[in-house]
Amino acid sequence: MALASDTGRRPTISLTTDFGHQGPFAAVMRAVIAARCPDATVIDLTHDIPVHWPPEAGFWVRRAYPYFPPRTVHVAVVDPGVGTERDIIAMTVDGHRFLAPDNGLLGDLLEIRPEATCVRVDVDRLRTKLDLPPPSATFHGRDLFAPAAAALAAGRLDISELGPTWTEWVPSQVDAPESRSNGIAGTVISIDTFGNLITNIDRTQLTEIATPSVQVAGIRLSLASTYGRVSPGDYLALINSFDVVEIARAEGSAAAGLGIGRGAPVRISAE
Amino acid sequence: MALASDTGRRPTISLTTDFGHQGPFAAVMRAVIAARCPDATVIDLTHDIPVHWPPEAGFWVRRAYPYFPPRTVHVAVVDPGVGTERDIIAMTVDGHRFLAPDNGLLGDLLEIRPEATCVRVDVDRLRTKLDLPPPSATFHGRDLFAPAAAALAAGRLDISELGPTWTEWVPSQVDAPESRSNGIAGTVISIDTFGNLITNIDRTQLTEIATPSVQVAGIRLSLASTYGRVSPGDYLALINSFDVVEIARAEGSAAAGLGIGRGAPVRISAE
Amino acid sequence: MALASDTGRRPTISLTTDFGHQGPFAAVMRAVIAARCPDATVIDLTHDIPVHWPPEAGFWVRRAYPYFPPRTVHVAVVDPGVGTERDIIAMTVDGHRFLAPDNGLLGDLLEIRPEATCVRVDVDRLRTKLDLPPPSATFHGRDLFAPAAAALAAGRLDISELGPTWTEWVPSQVDAPESRSNGIAGTVISIDTFGNLITNIDRTQLTEIATPSVQVAGIRLSLASTYGRVSPGDYLALINSFDVVEIARAEGSAAAGLGIGRGAPVRISAE
Repeated sequence: MALASDTGRRPTISLTTDFGHQGPFAAVMRAVIAARCPDATVIDLTHDIPVHWPPEAGFWVRRAYPYFPPRTVHVAVVDPGVGTERDIIAMTVDGHRFLAPDNGLLGDLLEIRPEATCVRVDVDRLRTKLDLPPPSATFHGRDLFAPAAAALAAGRLDISELGPTWTEWVPSQVDAPESRSNGIAGTVISIDTFGNLITNIDRTQLTEIATPSVQVAGIRLSLASTYGRVSPGDYLALINSFDVVEIARAEGSAAAGLGIGRGAPVRISAE
Repeated sequence: MALASDTGRRPTISLTTDFGHQGPFAAVMRAVIAARCPDATVIDLTHDIPVHWPPEAGFWVRRAYPYFPPRTVHVAVVDPGVGTERDIIAMTVDGHRFLAPDNGLLGDLLEIRPEATCVRVDVDRLRTKLDLPPPSATFHGRDLFAPAAAALAAGRLDISELGPTWTEWVPSQVDAPESRSNGIAGTVISIDTFGNLITNIDRTQLTEIATPSVQVAGIRLSLASTYGRVSPGDYLALINSFDVVEIARAEGSAAAGLGIGRGAPVRISAE
Repeated sequence: MALASDTGRRPTISLTTDFGHQGPFAAVMRAVIAARCPDATVIDLTHDIPVHWPPEAGFWVRRAYPYFPPRTVHVAVVDPGVGTERDIIAMTVDGHRFLAPDNGLLGDLLEIRPEATCVRVDVDRLRTKLDLPPPSATFHGRDLFAPAAAALAAGRLDISELGPTWTEWVPSQVDAPESRSNGIAGTVISIDTFGNLITNIDRTQLTEIATPSVQVAGIRLSLASTYGRVSPGDYLALINSFDVVEIARAEGSAAAGLGIGRGAPVRISAE
């Protein structure tokens, strides 16, 4: 078992939730981590995932994890089923570790990385190993995810000890973009602070289309290379810095201007 | 005097304010701490306390502190009286240290923990000990609270050195829930990102009521155990993960649906 | 070359952007820093600068940096021109290091500190030194600023190695307050969470005016010393904790009450 501490690095944990900034919810996860792995660097990926939209959490975790230090533990808690019988899963991809409820949040990453090692967390075993009291019904982020992440980050626990290998994980509630004869059908997954519409269509899917054209909300756009090349107010489509198609509006909000949001369909075809 | 550094742990400081995220106010408190106690782990409990609602800051500090590492310094600055003659108090509970303006913010914690050691901070003495310039009139978080917290966390200062024992602290501006013959009368103290209404009625107060029923905004609810057990849109009352009564709406916002907010009365009685 | 590690301190980096809290943008800058300078303390100055308002970023960096530990690296990315031909500049003031796009963001600091050493970043040289892949067109915060900041903070890079000395930096898009015969003309630069209007008029500029009077949005105010001295609802002008003139409303929002915001003119004259 390779321990994080073997690497001589500070362990790193990322947190992704829908807790927002009202109240101490994300802070208490950090407190539990500070008590159990004091040297961890904890980075808030975002706490502003919309409630009931786990696909955005999974999307950003998948797109952001390669920028984190090796062996980072990524915890994502967008968990409308907390306190019911939903499972918790854990997995390893490229040496990074991931923990999330089994509600499709990690489905996208599991789909594209079938070699990932995924386990279903045995909560009783976890509690015994870490000497945890019974979890509350509504805050597993504090009671299960944070202590597990701290133990993984500290090198006191390995993913394989968390439970049996699991292949029946819940798929993402958003279908992966599909290449059809008439183009690629994708979905708006996230909206950033600028109102840019961020889709799940990857750069690599566009290679077969010579001159791609993006259709969204009744308009059709060519792909540009950056924000600065069009006039203020114009819409543009580009491949963004996370390698997916994004619809932007120069010096404005595409989401507000087009009147669409998360879940909206986007189609790419030849011009 | 037991120094933080004796414990071999990284010192931890929590920050709770109404500064929001516009401007560098919380950041500058962190900067002062980084300059004076570079090894401290600083955790933002929340900076989104509503202006002029110190009870919520005190509520979350009281409910969250047990999850922090031993000897954490908890700084809470919701301070409409900054620059006037209001005092600053400091106290120790369970080895944790607390600093706040004497405006009732810590009144709730002092009420339930009468054995707490509370002192009134002698600002001149603090300034002499830490070699601080005269504080600004409007930002004691930066000029007094942050340097004091850093010195406490670093083990260079003890609560008892801050000033004389103080028993005339200002009580909370919200009365503690009272058990009357016809039930318990409490108050909504906080609203989370999901719109859940969080009250100050503790689990332990319900033990004498066989089948508790919650009255709020003209409706009556039984106590359920978690969010997932009712139909979308239904209201429910539960004891939340911080051991207080909470009114939620399945897949919705109870605050928006019931049209009430902080300060609203909540009553618990037998069904 | 004095290395940060020479000082025996933890290196510190501040981040100021307009990325907001939606999405992982600020987090990924932190991830890159964690991978390249694991011991750095990273402090978010603010991520809520309005898009296309670099002057506020520069204002807060200028006003906040003296509170940070010596040799802090301050990174400010409010960068509507990302991906176009705009330059990146770096500078040293009082031992602190600063990195920003050359769009006027640091113009104010350069204006008042003409002895500052400013260089234009040679991106090819930076990439060679740090072995960086080609940057994306839209996220230089992650691809250039964060790795450069980490290397500066870790003491592996010096400002002077980043590029040639540069004196033709872009000035701030807001003029510095000017002393005229009839008073001082300044500008609202920032609004805090309380709705206080924060101007760029410095305390030192008022010394020649015996009894200063503030004109803003058609009203005229005397200078008071703190928030608590007037009646609720009254407007007041004061010199705030960052030594600039601020217009506040007791227990209310001056911005909402006066109906003005960033960019609004403010004049100070004798009563």
